[in-house]
Amino acid sequence: MKAEIIAVGSELLTPDRADTNSLFLTERLNRLGIEVTRKSIVGDNLGSIQDTFRAALERVELVVASGGLGPTEDDLTRDAVAELLRLRLVRNEGVIRAIQERFQSFGRSMAENNARQAMVPEGATILENKRGTAPGLWIESKQSIIVLLPGPPRELKAMFQSEVEPRLAPRAPASRLHHHELRVAGLPESDLDQRIAPIYKTYADVETTLLASPGEIEVHFRIWSADGAEAERRLDELERHVALAIGEFIISTDGETMEQVVGQLLTANHATIATAESCTAGLVAERLTRVAGSSAYFLGGVVCYSNEMKTAFAGVPAALIEAHGAVSAEVARSLAEGIRRRTGAALGIGVTGVAGPSGGTPAKPIGTVHIALAAAGGTIERGVVFPGDRERIRWQAAQAALDMVRRHFIGASALGTSGTRGGAARTPGGKTSPKA
Amino acid sequence: MKAEIIAVGSELLTPDRADTNSLFLTERLNRLGIEVTRKSIVGDNLGSIQDTFRAALERVELVVASGGLGPTEDDLTRDAVAELLRLRLVRNEGVIRAIQERFQSFGRSMAENNARQAMVPEGATILENKRGTAPGLWIESKQSIIVLLPGPPRELKAMFQSEVEPRLAPRAPASRLHHHELRVAGLPESDLDQRIAPIYKTYADVETTLLASPGEIEVHFRIWSADGAEAERRLDELERHVALAIGEFIISTDGETMEQVVGQLLTANHATIATAESCTAGLVAERLTRVAGSSAYFLGGVVCYSNEMKTAFAGVPAALIEAHGAVSAEVARSLAEGIRRRTGAALGIGVTGVAGPSGGTPAKPIGTVHIALAAAGGTIERGVVFPGDRERIRWQAAQAALDMVRRHFIGASALGTSGTRGGAARTPGGKTSPKA
Repeated sequence: MKAEIIAVGSELLTPDRADTNSLFLTERLNRLGIEVTRKSIVGDNLGSIQDTFRAALERVELVVASGGLGPTEDDLTRDAVAELLRLRLVRNEGVIRAIQERFQSFGRSMAENNARQAMVPEGATILENKRGTAPGLWIESKQSIIVLLPGPPRELKAMFQSEVEPRLAPRAPASRLHHHELRVAGLPESDLDQRIAPIYKTYADVETTLLASPGEIEVHFRIWSADGAEAERRLDELERHVALAIGEFIISTDGETMEQVVGQLLTANHATIATAESCTAGLVAERLTRVAGSSAYFLGGVVCYSNEMKTAFAGVPAALIEAHGAVSAEVARSLAEGIRRRTGAALGIGVTGVAGPSGGTPAKPIGTVHIALAAAGGTIERGVVFPGDRERIRWQAAQAALDMVRRHFIGASALGTSGTRGGAARTPGGKTSPKA
Repeated sequence: MKAEIIAVGSELLTPDRADTNSLFLTERLNRLGIEVTRKSIVGDNLGSIQDTFRAALERVELVVASGGLGPTEDDLTRDAVAELLRLRLVRNEGVIRAIQERFQSFGRSMAENNARQAMVPEGATILENKRGTAPGLWIESKQSIIVLLPGPPRELKAMFQSEVEPRLAPRAPASRLHHHELRVAGLPESDLDQRIAPIYKTYADVETTLLASPGEIEVHFRIWSADGAEAERRLDELERHVALAIGEFIISTDGETMEQVVGQLLTANHATIATAESCTAGLVAERLTRVAGSSAYFLGGVVCYSNEMKTAFAGVPAALIEAHGAVSAEVARSLAEGIRRRTGAALGIGVTGVAGPSGGTPAKPIGTVHIALAAAGGTIERGVVFPGDRERIRWQAAQAALDMVRRHFIGASALGTSGTRGGAARTPGGKTSPKA
């Protein structure tokens, strides 16, 4: 079964808004074994909407559309599809009542233009909208199914899951999409691919995609199969082989983020943590605390941009800064050890570096970052030169700091290689390896 | 002149990747006075690509496509378009040499499959790719222009600006898109619209779009006009009228972010700042320091999640926490005053709240946040209940803290109303105002 997705809305043809509903719809359709073969984005224009539906209905059995179901005169999807299929629009009193009740629950009365949303093509099934006023529509025509959904993502998602999936599931093909995901840190994309391509290439039935972002790469494995157990077995096996090849670089196998994984490791080890950040300026603390419940292990941190603050809040000796400079292995160590001592945390993180765009020198170019992790057993430190702009350097530094914590607990070497897309990271004073 | 954009690539039909090139292309085309009337996304399939180009060429004078120009067998855009237009593909030795030289500069030799990229439809103009191997193509056919661009955004953007715009400009219509943008904080979307709709509706020639994100709303004004000076005059006038209506809620009129504006105000006033954050956990510090050069005014901050840290790092008296609770106006004030005192900064920010998902009580529900700003003239404090999940609550709290700094300098009341899309914010203990 193949599907096309149509997004209706003139705002989607401006530079400001991208259609993101289709990513969600694609994922849910794929899980039902339905492949998406085309996406079209059209404005609020009756003729364009009709052209697009007509062409799609000639090609595929399922057309899923979003947008254009609201109360205003610009909302034309309902009218366009009814006219195209020669279906009469009939005012549905049940829908009117539901909209009126929704307004009443907010203490308002329904504006008359909302009645447009109650116009239903003859024979169509109404899909209830629990999160808004515009109902969806399910229309069957010859060999095709047309599903019309409201544009706002939270309304569309809820409606698709509760109203559309149960109706599609019995008609969906036996062959479904099975999907596994690995997250990898500490390896550039080219190195990662070089290591794992010989493995995934032997799985001709598995589609492999690498998606790199600064400091992290997602590896997606997908397989279409009617035999779910066999597909999962193949994916598990592939994942095991990849894990053997790159083991310690794998952050998670179930979509968890670096900060979630670090949080789980801290929790499992009954360990607490504190941070002393200069160039990342709170990003490590902010990421650690994105995780609900992080107050159980995160004690706190300091952001010490000035030398005085490094001394006042993390106890870095002024003479040490004087001797080695604020961006140095020694100061990173002192930050980590100082914050650990002052907070009584099991682990202390110290980060200092040059995020740019100014402040670089030949000896300490922009991107130079020193990261230290202090623990009961001693302190380890790592110096890296990250590529990219200020934001990217800070993000990669925070990622590397969190990865040091992860590696601390899994007993891996603290270092690994580093940097992903957009140029490899290098050690300070070292040479950049070119990237084609 | 109207254009359609076609994105080619099977990866764009998976749940992982959205086409983002079209946002850039739309902006650049709009500036040339060219309207985008449709976007299509197709997989790496010869028939689908041809269908899409054929239909587009029947509708518009300009088709801009991205992707499918690379060296692999999946890269079919070149072949599809040549076949559709019945143009012979000829191997271009100049392109071969350019690719070979590119490989040599990396110390590699060219893999033979790259020669595919040198196949050029007869009569087509080659668009040089300074950032990659795949050249672009400019093909004129009857009344239409077809522009084929490589998929990687950095290659596409550079090529469009240097190779395509100079060729399009002389053919583009006299009517161009003129665009102004306001950023607004502290007003819910519905309130903002209620205040400014009576103004912008009197400008029938201006297209107005409100784009809300947590804590901030972008207001875009667009006008298509052949008379640039008059268009700018109209936009300036509209902007002035809107500024009179909502003055102090406007963060910027030129796309600057909250943290950039706050940085400029601190710099202009020779003021320094320091932060003591609990629930935002470094986000305020991290945002302040996203701005290059922020080390001139940001002294540092503390993230004090535990009560002990609030006392140790910001000098909040343990008895105060005991008496009022860690989430209270009193503790926010004490955090702000304590960090100001300890760092010697001109301004101190204190933030404490319940970000959730747990920790809420009937008296202090999830979303309750107290924010204080300490200055030489005294301390102001603001209590808010923000809607949304953990991430959203933290973001809005940081936004509100930065907005208090902004308001401090422009001499506005520190408070304003708050909350944007997704439900209005309210004061603790108050009632939520419903949002339709």
